[in-house]
Formats: sequence, C-alpha cells, structure tokens
Amino acid sequence: MNILKELAQPLRDKKIVLLVFDGLGGLSEGKGTELETARTPNLDRLATTGTLGLIHPIGCGITPGSGPAHLALFGYDPRETIVGRGILSALGVGFHDLRHGDIAGRINFCTLDGDGIVTDRRAGRVATEISSQLVEKLNQNVKIAGVEVFVRPEKEHRAAVVFRGKGLSGELTDSDPQVTGKAPLEVEPHDTAFDAAKKAAKVVNDFIAQAFEILKDDHPANGILVRGLDAFHPLPSMSELFNIKPAAIATYPMYRGVAKLCGMEILDAGQTVEEEIDRLEKAWNDFDFFYVHVKKTDSYGEDGNFDAKVHILEEVDPLVSRIEALGPACIAVTGDHSTPSRMKAHSFHPVPLLVWSELARVDECTAFGESQCARGGLGQFDSKELMPLMLAHAGRLQKFGA
Amino acid sequence: MNILKELAQPLRDKKIVLLVFDGLGGLSEGKGTELETARTPNLDRLATTGTLGLIHPIGCGITPGSGPAHLALFGYDPRETIVGRGILSALGVGFHDLRHGDIAGRINFCTLDGDGIVTDRRAGRVATEISSQLVEKLNQNVKIAGVEVFVRPEKEHRAAVVFRGKGLSGELTDSDPQVTGKAPLEVEPHDTAFDAAKKAAKVVNDFIAQAFEILKDDHPANGILVRGLDAFHPLPSMSELFNIKPAAIATYPMYRGVAKLCGMEILDAGQTVEEEIDRLEKAWNDFDFFYVHVKKTDSYGEDGNFDAKVHILEEVDPLVSRIEALGPACIAVTGDHSTPSRMKAHSFHPVPLLVWSELARVDECTAFGESQCARGGLGQFDSKELMPLMLAHAGRLQKFGA
Repeated sequence: MNILKELAQPLRDKKIVLLVFDGLGGLSEGKGTELETARTPNLDRLATTGTLGLIHPIGCGITPGSGPAHLALFGYDPRETIVGRGILSALGVGFHDLRHGDIAGRINFCTLDGDGIVTDRRAGRVATEISSQLVEKLNQNVKIAGVEVFVRPEKEHRAAVVFRGKGLSGELTDSDPQVTGKAPLEVEPHDTAFDAAKKAAKVVNDFIAQAFEILKDDHPANGILVRGLDAFHPLPSMSELFNIKPAAIATYPMYRGVAKLCGMEILDAGQTVEEEIDRLEKAWNDFDFFYVHVKKTDSYGEDGNFDAKVHILEEVDPLVSRIEALGPACIAVTGDHSTPSRMKAHSFHPVPLLVWSELARVDECTAFGESQCARGGLGQFDSKELMPLMLAHAGRLQKFGA
Repeated sequence: MNILKELAQPLRDKKIVLLVFDGLGGLSEGKGTELETARTPNLDRLATTGTLGLIHPIGCGITPGSGPAHLALFGYDPRETIVGRGILSALGVGFHDLRHGDIAGRINFCTLDGDGIVTDRRAGRVATEISSQLVEKLNQNVKIAGVEVFVRPEKEHRAAVVFRGKGLSGELTDSDPQVTGKAPLEVEPHDTAFDAAKKAAKVVNDFIAQAFEILKDDHPANGILVRGLDAFHPLPSMSELFNIKPAAIATYPMYRGVAKLCGMEILDAGQTVEEEIDRLEKAWNDFDFFYVHVKKTDSYGEDGNFDAKVHILEEVDPLVSRIEALGPACIAVTGDHSTPSRMKAHSFHPVPLLVWSELARVDECTAFGESQCARGGLGQFDSKELMPLMLAHAGRLQKFGA
C-alpha cells in the first residue's frame, strides 16, 4: 500500500465509479446464474468494450461477511483490518461518530426469571417499537461517572452500545452465556494485567447492572446481554492511501458505516437506486471516487428468490448509461461477495467483475456473467487489488521505479 | 527464494533462453494488439506446442520502470529490491564496475548566470559531443582527497557520477532545485546524525564546487546539477540463488547494467538482434541461462508507432527457429512490461508470456498474443515467479519434501 501512496496522483478529472451489487455472484438453477439470466444490455455493452474477471473477497474458499468484503473492495487487506463486531454494529445502526478509543458492543434484549436466569435470549423477538422505547429509557437513566454511554436501537431485540471514556480497553469477554437456563456472565478482561481492560469491564458491568434495574418491569425484555465488545481504532483514510476524494452513495446504514470508517464522505442516497444515481449526478464535480451500493441483489439472494434477484439487475441496468454519460475515466461493476439464491446465504464463490475504461485491454467477452468472467482478461485475483486496478485504469498512477 | 536455492540443480545441459521483447504488451488500435497483428509463425508454433500466460511485473495496476521490471524477470522481488536511480544511471551508461559502498548520482549540465542562478536546467540540451568533452575535463581536473571520482557521459546534457571512498553514505538530498531562477542547493545528509552521510555530503559539495570552477567558461554548460544519489549494495547473484550460470546478450547499456547487477556475465551483443543470436550460438556451451534482450519493441511503443512495433516483431520472429535449433530445455518469450503504442508509454497491463519446453502442459492456444495469453494454461501471476517456472520447465528443480 505504501507504493500506491507514492504513485497515486490527485487528478480530479479522472473519476472512478465503483458500482457494487451486494451479493452479486450466483449459481445456476438450470440455465445460468442470476446475472447470466438477467437481460442487461447496458452492462453487456460495457463488458464488450471493457474487460472482465473474478475477484476473491478474502481468499480462496472463504465466505465473507459484508464488513470485510467491503473493506477489501476499498483497498484494505480484510485479513489484517479486523473491525470488531461491536464496531460494525454501531456503524450499522448509524452511529457514525465513533472516536478513537470508544468501546462498542452489541446488545440483545433478553428475558430473565425471578432468579436472574436467562429464559429467552431474544426476549420473544420483541417488536422494534418497544425495544426502541427501552433503548431511550436506558439512554436517559444510565449514569456512569466519567463515561458517556450511547445506546442505539436496531431491529427487534437488537441494539448497539458505545462507551466513551478515558483509558478503556476493548479486550473484554461477553456477558451473553449463549444458552438459556444460565445467568448472564460477568464481563471480564481478556488479560487482567491491563488496567484499561479492568476499568472497562467495571464500566460495562455497571451499565448492565443499571440496565437490569431500569428494565425490571419491562417483561419480556427485562434484561440485556452484551457481546462483541471492541475498541475503535480509526483506519488510514482512502484519501491518505490512494490520493482520492471519495464519496459513498448507499441507502443502508451498515454500508454507510463501513464507508465512513474508510474516510469517505457519506452522501444522502435517498431510498431507491434511481435516487442514488440522481445523487451521483449532483455530486459529480465534488469528488473523484464514487462508491454506489445496490442492496437488494443480496436481500433477494438471501431470500432464495432467484427471479427477484434477476429482476433487480434488469431494473438497475438502464441506469448504467446515466453513469457512462457523466464521463468517468473508469467504471468498475462488481459485488462485495456472492449470495447465490440457491444457497440463501453468502458464499465463497468469487465475484463477477467488470472494468470499463479507455485503457482497458479489451478481451473476448461480450456479456457480464460468471462464465464469461472466468475467462476474462483480468483473470482471478483478490478483491483488495481492485483499488490499484481501478486507479491504474483511471490513469491516476505514476510509474514505479526508473 | 531459499527453497529454490536448495532445489535447483546445476545441470549444464538443461539450458534456458529468456527472450525479452522490451515493452512487449500492447493494446488494440482496432483489430488486435501489436503482437496480435504481427505475422509471427515461429512464435505461434512455440505457442501451439508450449503454453501461454500473462505476467504482472510489480503487481496489479502498477506501471513499472525498466529496472524493477527486469529484476522481477530475473527472479528478484522488485518491491524489496530497490535500486536507486543513481545506481541505475551509472549502470545505464556502462559503468558496470560498481563496488560495495560506491555512491552514484545523475548529473545534468546546466546554465548558470553571473550570480550563480540556474537559467536552464539542461544547458540548452547541449550536444552529446560537447558534453562528452566536458565530462572528460571533469575527470581530469577534479581532485578530492581519499575519494576517486568517475564521471561518465550519457546523452545530451545527461551524465552519471560515481564516488568511491571509505565510509560514505548515499542518504543525501539533491543539488537540483528543480526550477530555474534559483541557485543550486547544497547537498545535505537526510539525517545529520550519521557521520557517513555528513562526510558524503561534503565530498559531493566539494565535487560540485570544483565542477563550477572547471566549467566556468563553458557556457551554456557552465554548471552541473546532481540528483538521485545512492549507495551501491550488491545483490545476491543469480548463480547463488538459482544454481545457474547466466549470460546476458543485450545491446543497450541499461539492460547490461541490470544483468550485471544480478551477477550475469555480459557478452558482447553487437548492434542488431541477428548479431545477438550469433552471439548466443557462439556462447551456447559456456552458460546454461541466456537473457536475450530486444529493445526496439519498447522504443516504437514509446513513439506511438504501432506499425513499426509490429514490424520489429515480424523481423525477430524467424530468428526464433535458430534458438530452437540449439536445443534448449526451455524457451521463455515475454516482455519486461507493456508499452502500448496507443499510450506512448509504459503501462500497467500484464505482459504476454510464452513458455516452451518438452515438459510444458500444452493448452488450447495456437498463437502468441494478449487475448490467447489471457486464457492460456499458465494463468496470470507475478513476473518474479517466472524464474522458478523456467527452472522447472527446464527440469532443473528437485522435489520439495519427501
């Protein structure tokens, strides 16, 4: 990465658009994958005049979560850049103002019996409206000297918590016993030799004890379980690493969060992909790298809905010509990972990649799909190499050595 | 590399020829790249009976200079093996006798006004005949106690200088102010804590002061600017690393220099590729690894002359049968990097590779060109892996492990 830092030039006119269809890669259910089945004349035109390949988010055979998969697309080594689950959770609920040293964790509302034993780890999947009120109650009533506590609701029984104070470490165990019939565990430091971890454990246990008191009459959500605690360490920004001015256009909080983590400016994306492209057009002059995220390909993949995933691809395809019309130096179209509807889950399969640029070495491929990508001119490589490849195709990298 | 050192066998009969077309890779200007357009029946025959692939000189998206690109072909990691510009410059002008600890730098003859201000950083691109005389004048008149100074002419206003003395460091700044209207800068140590750098700075500044005095009546070339200063640290030789006896046949000093750096024997290559092959035939029994370099593919690429680049390929193609006739165990044909004539510059595109050997796993490719290479049996990989691949195809590597 240090090489790139030296070679990358800040050329505002050589713009890059990275269009990410979440969970793009698929499997055939007879006559081709979702992407191969979809009628996508615009993507196919780019495939014909550009070049194709397959990318591996983490490495051969590894199925990624969305966090590391996106970090790889943004040029970070997803094996080195470990972002804790608590941090992703806080980012995922839109708590983007994380500061160096903040401790974040995931919360489940749970049900406790009279003896303090967990009888339901999800409090009957309590409705989001109820859990949001309970989150508010916690925010108003928890008091810990010298520490700010922020609780944010997620869906149903889920929430996130952030502790902000001096000298706290995130090296902490969970309070979640993972099974019913047991009492919640004390949060403990991974290594008692460190005062910062001891102090943080005390803070979190204090928070949990206060929460039990505050929620005691709110059966079935009369307790909480905390897990995935982690400290926030900011990453070097994409601007620093690649000499770009990046913006993110994504409708879902989680993806905005990861983008924020990488130092992107988060733009108001509206509700639909069409509104995302409207936003792209408006912001065109203000940035030189645009990450545009399409969520529903993944959602329908997870639902096992082959046809709906095909339909989303067909719906977005015409918008591609609006991206072209802006005159980018490079367009890359890919996914963060594969979500074959046949598997109803993320998978390990490498992800189709299309790179269009005046500088692309045109290959023999004429349509954007997994089979053609497998014999495309770009070959197969790790997703984390996509960033240098895009920068190169946009003409933004100087020569290495004499 | 340590693995190879243990596995490689010194088999004098299993010879390897590495034929490097400088800047081989190209881009289409309508109907195929330069290599795809050229009629190359001999290379195509090797492609049909051998196997193809694409190699990345430095890494995904990185455009290389010729120095690191060649080091990669010779089996060195080009990201780790950083050779300074001054060193490459000295090697490039044919100063091949560099010794451990020598300091080398690049010189520009420049024009100074009466107040010592630089008015032209290139002395009006003074003719090579003139600058060669000035170089001689410097060699005869500069005297620095305890230090030998060697100045060598390059083209026009360019020259190279080598300082040989005890305890000198190359951690030095440039004297070139990079703009006109300023006086030349004092050369300074990067870190004043090191005596070796302080001493070296004193030597270089003394050299520059003497040069100003010696050249004062040689307007427009009445001054010099020095930059890219660096110390020479020898690399482990290819013989040590790969158990081969290597020879270089290259007409241009720069490539002979890099080969020398890797411990190759430098053979007299004549002026033309035909003479290079003559030399190869004569030296056949004396070595077991031959690097043969064709420069003009790169030069015409840099000129943007598609047809001339095609023509050179067609001119060299028949000579390939003379290489075959010698009975090598492995022939590899590739480039150090791509120089598409459309871009008139080195580029980041991976480089076509052909490996012929009795041991090659023949793929479906029938012609040597970028598109076929993209679906060749060797796939895509880093250039630095070519050396083990050639050794293997020549049957020179033992089994790893039991």
